[in-house]
Amino acid sequence: MPGSSFGRAFVVTTAGESHGPGNVVIIDGCPPGIPLTAEDLEEDLARRRPGQSRIVSQRKEPDAPEILSGVFDGRTTGTSIAILVRNVDQRSRDYSEIEDKYRPGHADRSYDDKFGFRDYRGGGRASARETVARVAAGAVAKKLIAQAFGGRIVGYVVQVGDVVADIDDPGAITRASVETLPDGEPNVVRCPDHAAAARMVTLIEKVRKEQDSIGGVAEICATGVPAGLGEPVFDKLKADLGKALFSLPAVLGVEYGVGFGCATRRGSENNDAFVMDGDRVVTESNRHGGMLGGISSGMPIVLRAAVKPTSSLPRPQKTVTRDGEATTISTGGRHDPCLLPRFVPMAEAMVALVLADHWLRWVGQTRAMQGSAQ
Amino acid sequence: MPGSSFGRAFVVTTAGESHGPGNVVIIDGCPPGIPLTAEDLEEDLARRRPGQSRIVSQRKEPDAPEILSGVFDGRTTGTSIAILVRNVDQRSRDYSEIEDKYRPGHADRSYDDKFGFRDYRGGGRASARETVARVAAGAVAKKLIAQAFGGRIVGYVVQVGDVVADIDDPGAITRASVETLPDGEPNVVRCPDHAAAARMVTLIEKVRKEQDSIGGVAEICATGVPAGLGEPVFDKLKADLGKALFSLPAVLGVEYGVGFGCATRRGSENNDAFVMDGDRVVTESNRHGGMLGGISSGMPIVLRAAVKPTSSLPRPQKTVTRDGEATTISTGGRHDPCLLPRFVPMAEAMVALVLADHWLRWVGQTRAMQGSAQ
Amino acid sequence: MPGSSFGRAFVVTTAGESHGPGNVVIIDGCPPGIPLTAEDLEEDLARRRPGQSRIVSQRKEPDAPEILSGVFDGRTTGTSIAILVRNVDQRSRDYSEIEDKYRPGHADRSYDDKFGFRDYRGGGRASARETVARVAAGAVAKKLIAQAFGGRIVGYVVQVGDVVADIDDPGAITRASVETLPDGEPNVVRCPDHAAAARMVTLIEKVRKEQDSIGGVAEICATGVPAGLGEPVFDKLKADLGKALFSLPAVLGVEYGVGFGCATRRGSENNDAFVMDGDRVVTESNRHGGMLGGISSGMPIVLRAAVKPTSSLPRPQKTVTRDGEATTISTGGRHDPCLLPRFVPMAEAMVALVLADHWLRWVGQTRAMQGSAQ
Amino acid sequence: MPGSSFGRAFVVTTAGESHGPGNVVIIDGCPPGIPLTAEDLEEDLARRRPGQSRIVSQRKEPDAPEILSGVFDGRTTGTSIAILVRNVDQRSRDYSEIEDKYRPGHADRSYDDKFGFRDYRGGGRASARETVARVAAGAVAKKLIAQAFGGRIVGYVVQVGDVVADIDDPGAITRASVETLPDGEPNVVRCPDHAAAARMVTLIEKVRKEQDSIGGVAEICATGVPAGLGEPVFDKLKADLGKALFSLPAVLGVEYGVGFGCATRRGSENNDAFVMDGDRVVTESNRHGGMLGGISSGMPIVLRAAVKPTSSLPRPQKTVTRDGEATTISTGGRHDPCLLPRFVPMAEAMVALVLADHWLRWVGQTRAMQGSAQ
Repeated sequence: MPGSSFGRAFVVTTAGESHGPGNVVIIDGCPPGIPLTAEDLEEDLARRRPGQSRIVSQRKEPDAPEILSGVFDGRTTGTSIAILVRNVDQRSRDYSEIEDKYRPGHADRSYDDKFGFRDYRGGGRASARETVARVAAGAVAKKLIAQAFGGRIVGYVVQVGDVVADIDDPGAITRASVETLPDGEPNVVRCPDHAAAARMVTLIEKVRKEQDSIGGVAEICATGVPAGLGEPVFDKLKADLGKALFSLPAVLGVEYGVGFGCATRRGSENNDAFVMDGDRVVTESNRHGGMLGGISSGMPIVLRAAVKPTSSLPRPQKTVTRDGEATTISTGGRHDPCLLPRFVPMAEAMVALVLADHWLRWVGQTRAMQGSAQ
Repeated sequence: MPGSSFGRAFVVTTAGESHGPGNVVIIDGCPPGIPLTAEDLEEDLARRRPGQSRIVSQRKEPDAPEILSGVFDGRTTGTSIAILVRNVDQRSRDYSEIEDKYRPGHADRSYDDKFGFRDYRGGGRASARETVARVAAGAVAKKLIAQAFGGRIVGYVVQVGDVVADIDDPGAITRASVETLPDGEPNVVRCPDHAAAARMVTLIEKVRKEQDSIGGVAEICATGVPAGLGEPVFDKLKADLGKALFSLPAVLGVEYGVGFGCATRRGSENNDAFVMDGDRVVTESNRHGGMLGGISSGMPIVLRAAVKPTSSLPRPQKTVTRDGEATTISTGGRHDPCLLPRFVPMAEAMVALVLADHWLRWVGQTRAMQGSAQ
Repeated sequence: MPGSSFGRAFVVTTAGESHGPGNVVIIDGCPPGIPLTAEDLEEDLARRRPGQSRIVSQRKEPDAPEILSGVFDGRTTGTSIAILVRNVDQRSRDYSEIEDKYRPGHADRSYDDKFGFRDYRGGGRASARETVARVAAGAVAKKLIAQAFGGRIVGYVVQVGDVVADIDDPGAITRASVETLPDGEPNVVRCPDHAAAARMVTLIEKVRKEQDSIGGVAEICATGVPAGLGEPVFDKLKADLGKALFSLPAVLGVEYGVGFGCATRRGSENNDAFVMDGDRVVTESNRHGGMLGGISSGMPIVLRAAVKPTSSLPRPQKTVTRDGEATTISTGGRHDPCLLPRFVPMAEAMVALVLADHWLRWVGQTRAMQGSAQ
Repeated sequence: MPGSSFGRAFVVTTAGESHGPGNVVIIDGCPPGIPLTAEDLEEDLARRRPGQSRIVSQRKEPDAPEILSGVFDGRTTGTSIAILVRNVDQRSRDYSEIEDKYRPGHADRSYDDKFGFRDYRGGGRASARETVARVAAGAVAKKLIAQAFGGRIVGYVVQVGDVVADIDDPGAITRASVETLPDGEPNVVRCPDHAAAARMVTLIEKVRKEQDSIGGVAEICATGVPAGLGEPVFDKLKADLGKALFSLPAVLGVEYGVGFGCATRRGSENNDAFVMDGDRVVTESNRHGGMLGGISSGMPIVLRAAVKPTSSLPRPQKTVTRDGEATTISTGGRHDPCLLPRFVPMAEAMVALVLADHWLRWVGQTRAMQGSAQ
């Protein structure tokens, strides 16, 4: 049964494979009147794009989005928005090896088990190529939340291997510090602790030379989110955010606030006291990561996702063929030695989609009795 | 917009508050012909029940389920199953304190912000009391997956505070070792490492005496799950399991397989090699926690959830009133000093719901072309 | 896959059979703050109730609703509302005949074909008994639309057999004229043309004496509905209203505005001209039945449903057994000789559910950009 | 809230406007392994295409579909299928008239009321142009149901104005008789009663010359559908089929079996007796139109839809401007004088989508306990 849609009020549906003609997303439920052009999508697509720096995959994709519907005179009309991003660099190559052999850590065998056969070209639908559609939709969601309530989402890398960034206040991280180094050069690893960033780059280049890959952790902080988003039981904001991040390729863990650190804490040292900030209720600390009872508290929402090391490796790995013969496979080529730098815009997009969706859900239920349509 | 339903093919919808007349669940989409009686629900309800041991809440609830529909002659009919669990111990008390004051770490203020007012009796819909409906539905899901494909789910506590259990092979943990100590006494903390279990009990009793609470980690292992469950993009099995666990009260983190440990790993030491086990494809190790590309691999599914220390404390905590006055609150009474022992059946239930749902989804799509209905 | 839920923003989920313990509905997504008590549900339940007059089924059901959740201090809280209506008159009888024989016109064999077996007591889930849950939910929806935008729904019978009522202006029909005759007696057939009503009653009593049943047509008119409800493509308001009415037992046809009469019309005589009524845009006539492009126009919404004659007859009918033997069956007893009088509140309820749902959907999308939550 | 998706297990989501770059459909949930090429879509697209005969709109659209995903090596992969049909004939013209004036019978004002503004070029999303996406998806659904259970759908015109076709046995109508006249010429009006067809063509040409349009009725018959499809309460097969047809532009009424004719019938003459046909249970007659209790009975499913006369007329009609000024408008040009001939493939597509969806739903629930995945 279908799993290519996400959201209930701001619904995105995607299609597309790594080496097919292109990737498409349909956004349904977007409010009318939001200014939108293809240019609005390009910044985030560029941040996700392969080939953007020396430490990521060197596949060449312009990722030029075409808006096919739902926008008129530069504004969203309220009807479904379709965006197409064609695949360009479908490099002609011999796929016979991955046709027959299961790549360790990949979904090849999962797809064969599930569907009976698979589009093996570059991983097909299981390739992270599909996230291009998410990032395009996320760019629309970001515009929505910025305009509706001043919501802002900033993602960044906080760990690569054993290099851990020192982040004092997630809510104070700027996009500029994530994207650019003090000398004006691109911050290719997207870690706002620039000293750690340098060490991360060194580590990534080291593992690449060793024909290996390395894991890490990204953090995403959403500020300006009003209190009250999220539903009481199953569709808690933390649950939908958790699903959103887990739906991204390579994510093995998600946490918010103190996360797994809560296990060793006592209630008396974990609870955040409520205090007044002028006439606003806030908490003195933010160990709860901006969500209480699964519903936004008005404090910054702080999430972390653990991303595994890239499974594709240029070195030989032990595996089996479709016919059950033992063999080895090396899947080198144009893979990212560390997924984290390009993971950041993907994670931001997913968080944006959830916030846009829950905003519309909140408005629908709680503004419904405020006077008539006419 | 509604958030009280979960699942797409095996759909549960719940209603009920802590101190209202009762909690209800409607299960829609259950296959016909599964033997089911109220007794089938009672074991898991007893494991979730307050008052079951000295280290949990002492609220007294018999939690006797009544099946209102969907079962005939002892078997499910294929139509929607409604189960009602009445609340009995709605202890008469003065709620004026929590009516006016926001309990730190609780959803009180979230609900006020969201809905404008709230049912403050015992937390209303935000109380973990609502999980009684999930556990009842989970018991039905467990029967389904056991009968359909031999699926078995075992949850247990692996950490309380700084006491960490030593678990060698999650797939080998038995329900008996989780529930019962070697001497036949109940394993009240539900940790299968019985030496650690004893230390956990000691720690829980200590924090309770200190008018405090303590966090921990639970692990859930599902065995017998066929390869192929989960959808390619948004509804990956890991995503729906992540949402399922994050939707439970007090969960601040979720991981599977090596989880956050992947951050410091290299690809060459993280990938699990495919090998043959007779004519079955398996992996040599299970760092991937039973899911690749978000789809089940046939290996045991191993998840962990971090559960925060109970927010309700008998000691005074700093907070504010609805009117914005600084004050203190102590919410002692019948609260669990550690949520983990009763969390185990809740987490099992949520995992069972996801597996039942994805099984039906898989069957619907992939068996659709195998001959006609007639 | 599940079919017991209806709506997307105002979602009702039902469970229950004719002769089980009771029927339940969970309403999820209701806005907070709407005054609601069990009494609010009783008027419509009484209008649907068997035994209310001499021309309907004589089954005795008090249909006393119990609100189990979602209401606090007399107001909806915004969380899911569960309502239970217990079955009382589960008359002890011998079901062996309908266990073995398929009643013509009924779903008996459909259920056997679908599920492999069925709850044959009184039709089980296929009995119109399930509509008690719809009517309870519809009463909540009616409160919502009345309070939110002054929406009002009036249903009535316009045809029984060859007796056709003369209705001049659907928008002017009052509930009083539908329920009560000029002499103060109950208008048992619910036709506001009281001369026709008398002839309908005579006809119904005649067919009952002849051990037969008779079909008819009901009309439902919704006034006060703002322009703009309904979605552009699949979820047009007319599509969701059509589904709503077709989902009721015994409905074989649905139309709105001129309906099937449009087939013989020319465009020049079918289009309704737009004119100004003060500063409101209205149409001179209402052949479009209040919906253009599937979206409400602000004019009264006028729908009709064709309801077949009751399939259960006290006279013998030809059929087969489960084992394929030719036989006859007579299913007399307490059945309605004409379904129309009790159909009216069921149809009103379904129309109310659709309007409440689309109102919330419209608010969610189009008020989303009107300033922040805070 | 979103309304551009249809179905639950076989889900189609569409986007696109009349005069934008193109129309897109994403099909999610299609079983893997179904042979599919762009050519498979072309026959139905050609039947829907404007310009196909002298009695339809003369807009020129090649309607060449591009499959963007979900198909590999000529077979569906089980992942989402995206199909793009570009708009070509976006004739350059002056839209200022329909920008300012509301066309009677059209959705112009509905959209303004709903969204605040609209894409007025050719009706935007409200144009029947969007059905190109439905027809493409319907062609995939037809392949599915043909291969899975031998399902076959034939639609045809049974009435135009006062010309009514004489149809003896809907289940015996062939596609050939609908598409082609005995002399081999195209049956442009798609009425299988060829004498009536000739009179219909004459009538349509007459109304066109008179700058007018005419309504009619189409019938759709689905044969080979197994008993058991449809859900008990809200998602009855008749309810989803009813919604499917009402979701099409210009449909004012839907009925099945005897439809509105049931109003004047008695139960004794309306019920269809069950009898044996070999070892199959069938009914002697098919007044129930192939659905009992809303669930398919195994008999042919027979539906009819009433389609209004085209609202766009070359003659002046009374209306108002956006600013509330009285005016007239004539919207001549390339409109169909009668919508019925092109409505046939649209209606077939919607019926196919419902049957494919309910087939997958039925399989998922009722085959779930038939042994394991492995």
